[in-house]
Amino acid sequence: MSKGLPKRADDYSAWYNELVKRADLAENSAVRGCMVIKPYGYSIWEKMQGALDKMLKDTGHSNAYFPLFIPKSFLSREAEHVEGFAKECAVVTHYRLKMSEDGSGLVVDPESKLEEELIVRPTSETVIWNTYKNWIQSYRDLPLLINQWANVVRWEMRTRLFLRTTEFLWQEGHTAHATKIEAEEETKKILNIYSTFAEEYMGMPVLKGVKTESERFAGAVDTYCIEALMQDGKALQAGTSHFLGQNFAKAFDVKFATKEGGLDLVWGTSWGVSTRLIGALIMAHSDDNGLVLPPKLAPIQVVIIPIVKKKEHYSLIYEKLESIIQKMKARGISVHYDDRDTYKPGWKFAEYELKGVPLRLAIGPRDLENNTIEIARRDTKTKETVSIDNIDELVENLLKEIQKSIFQRALSYREDNTTDVDTYQEFKRVLKEKGGFIKAHWDGTRETEERIKNETKASIRCILLDEKEESGKCVYSGKPSGKKVVFAKAY
Amino acid sequence: MSKGLPKRADDYSAWYNELVKRADLAENSAVRGCMVIKPYGYSIWEKMQGALDKMLKDTGHSNAYFPLFIPKSFLSREAEHVEGFAKECAVVTHYRLKMSEDGSGLVVDPESKLEEELIVRPTSETVIWNTYKNWIQSYRDLPLLINQWANVVRWEMRTRLFLRTTEFLWQEGHTAHATKIEAEEETKKILNIYSTFAEEYMGMPVLKGVKTESERFAGAVDTYCIEALMQDGKALQAGTSHFLGQNFAKAFDVKFATKEGGLDLVWGTSWGVSTRLIGALIMAHSDDNGLVLPPKLAPIQVVIIPIVKKKEHYSLIYEKLESIIQKMKARGISVHYDDRDTYKPGWKFAEYELKGVPLRLAIGPRDLENNTIEIARRDTKTKETVSIDNIDELVENLLKEIQKSIFQRALSYREDNTTDVDTYQEFKRVLKEKGGFIKAHWDGTRETEERIKNETKASIRCILLDEKEESGKCVYSGKPSGKKVVFAKAY
Repeated sequence: MSKGLPKRADDYSAWYNELVKRADLAENSAVRGCMVIKPYGYSIWEKMQGALDKMLKDTGHSNAYFPLFIPKSFLSREAEHVEGFAKECAVVTHYRLKMSEDGSGLVVDPESKLEEELIVRPTSETVIWNTYKNWIQSYRDLPLLINQWANVVRWEMRTRLFLRTTEFLWQEGHTAHATKIEAEEETKKILNIYSTFAEEYMGMPVLKGVKTESERFAGAVDTYCIEALMQDGKALQAGTSHFLGQNFAKAFDVKFATKEGGLDLVWGTSWGVSTRLIGALIMAHSDDNGLVLPPKLAPIQVVIIPIVKKKEHYSLIYEKLESIIQKMKARGISVHYDDRDTYKPGWKFAEYELKGVPLRLAIGPRDLENNTIEIARRDTKTKETVSIDNIDELVENLLKEIQKSIFQRALSYREDNTTDVDTYQEFKRVLKEKGGFIKAHWDGTRETEERIKNETKASIRCILLDEKEESGKCVYSGKPSGKKVVFAKAY
Repeated sequence: MSKGLPKRADDYSAWYNELVKRADLAENSAVRGCMVIKPYGYSIWEKMQGALDKMLKDTGHSNAYFPLFIPKSFLSREAEHVEGFAKECAVVTHYRLKMSEDGSGLVVDPESKLEEELIVRPTSETVIWNTYKNWIQSYRDLPLLINQWANVVRWEMRTRLFLRTTEFLWQEGHTAHATKIEAEEETKKILNIYSTFAEEYMGMPVLKGVKTESERFAGAVDTYCIEALMQDGKALQAGTSHFLGQNFAKAFDVKFATKEGGLDLVWGTSWGVSTRLIGALIMAHSDDNGLVLPPKLAPIQVVIIPIVKKKEHYSLIYEKLESIIQKMKARGISVHYDDRDTYKPGWKFAEYELKGVPLRLAIGPRDLENNTIEIARRDTKTKETVSIDNIDELVENLLKEIQKSIFQRALSYREDNTTDVDTYQEFKRVLKEKGGFIKAHWDGTRETEERIKNETKASIRCILLDEKEESGKCVYSGKPSGKKVVFAKAY
């Protein structure tokens, strides 16, 4: 069981890798860089999808599905886009296998070579804007608010389960608008949806900001992002929302007849979050004993474990619990009753602790006599014995409290680990000794950004949307700066 | 609008193709054989997914996700499997693009050639059984009941929207069991889930049967299927459930420690339904005016159209309708109020008819005076004016009635178009003049099956599970036969 899970303080990276495997979330597959998402991990993703999909639909977005393959020539249409993705593309070149002529094995049939190679989508802007060209004629066709849930492939050299994998699952939204203002508003609306989702469902506080030019999505005019802080003091980009300007409309010649009778290029946005969020969720909250999951995304919210010495106790306990379980289910609580006699209670306690089940109820013969039950919180590891009457209401309230408390703890951690610095020396000291987010003045040049990154490995995570104007001097160059930006080492 | 939709009697195939496009379900993409599923089509798929996913979870199945790519060598492991899929595989051979040296364009970087080619999954048995090898050690790990929702690619030469596309979406279940009996039971359990789903949700009656050897899934011991009859008298295979025996366990060396202390090969099943079901749904019920959708899968169940001459009527009508709309929503009815003033009511009537919305409500100034509303059924095209009081209850009941009635009509059609024949002459005559399912004795040989198929284009769709034993003579060879089988021309 959790015996031997590395400690965060000793080796954060090993702790993460081991936890992902032991909690049955995911594992590496036989295909380099591609993961198998196991049922428990996938059920967290389903919870995430459910919540986010509803938020997107409630704001007028519809789901659709576009092809997995992108003709090679499409990628070249937008110059920056191809620059950004060409180096990490899985390329389909043939469409048939055959037995080799000497009968020794299966080979690619050279006669099945494609005239034009197909790229397994790393993202779908090109194939979607090529489609939008036919869908959009007039202002009446706008806005077009479409999302897709899909798999994408980016040939990464160094991969880590959930955080960076060759294939990953995500949603990608692609919208088209008649005006610049409307597209910019959409970009920000989505950023707010992402931040609400991160904070209210994942219990993970995020900074909202805009990327510098060098960190921008390939083909975007502006990239907005949410950035979270992990427990090792490193930042993680958890979602991005891009204002594309008219770049893809230009590349794919997507114009519309305006209300006034003119012909204009369409304005676009794209945005996405991926299974990377599961990695963020793990690293934001979990501890040396295993996962800590926020109740809103926990596949099992409450586990009930009977403490039984004699077999006949099972039926007595179940008799007591049956109506309570029903009441909890009626409140929409996902409850699992684990009465397997092949495992001891102690083993089960450790197992559900590892898997991050927010509440554990345990009930034994003495509880039956006293009409009590033991209730234990995963997040605080506190437990108490309470009356079994109204346990369903107590559980519901506790789940809400845990959801808040997890967020609050992560927020305090972030606040404690966000440091304002005024000199480069201080910058380097804080980065080394404490990590976390560092707020510092920056002169706005790509050169300074790069030098700081090369010297310290810290990158500019974002320029906060609500950062106050404040004149100061760049920590690196000493040149004037109008506001601070957020630096950190990042995943 | 629907003007010009070809008539089924004139050209069934053109009618289908046009309907798919005009009803905004799907369209061909720039990539040969791959479709774009448009929002309206995709929302039908989401409804299907929702219902089927719940049925699978209620019977103990969990979702997971396995890699898109399959190493070429995996395919070769199961001899029949590779034979079945090698000829239609999209093959990834490289992982990078670069600018050509003469700067003329984007080319595949020859230095990025993969050591072993990757196949875009046509189905996932191989990659999943390779994973199960690590997941299954003991009988305690069984049964393993896993499903995945995914995209797959089969390089088809002739494609048609939904019915046969290079890339399609599906669910594929892959289960592992300790005994043959248990695996066989699972295969049939899934077949029953598929048939219940087809009949109760899609309103599409299906035959349940087993495939002959020649129609079996590549690598299966037995393939069970559901077969539906389309309105042109052709059959459509709507779902398959395979008993794999120990074939994949053998190929991937998946053994488990039995309760008794032995070591046995694991028994397997796999099963799937795909976006092809959308094609089946269209062809089973729709008419010359457009889609006819069963209420349980209709993205919009009720549309309300105000008949307005003066602008001020809008608010009067909405005032009247507001509480009714709320009441319908409270009953879980999906209702759309279309008060756009950019389109005339007649245009809207045709549009929602084309899109198969089961019920249309229309309300004008005179209805306001009389406290009435016009209600029109899409399936029967009947309409009546009714009191607006309790309209929500009426709508709910009518939706149920439509669901039943659509099924009943399709069932009658199938019964009228299922013919028992005793001679080959009759067989050919019925096939030519009437089509549909033909029940006939068959001698059980692959040779006879092939000859009949070559001569008539009719294949054996299945041997019905509940077909009665009855001694007779093969319509083709005259040799003895123990029961009749079902023939048809098929999609």
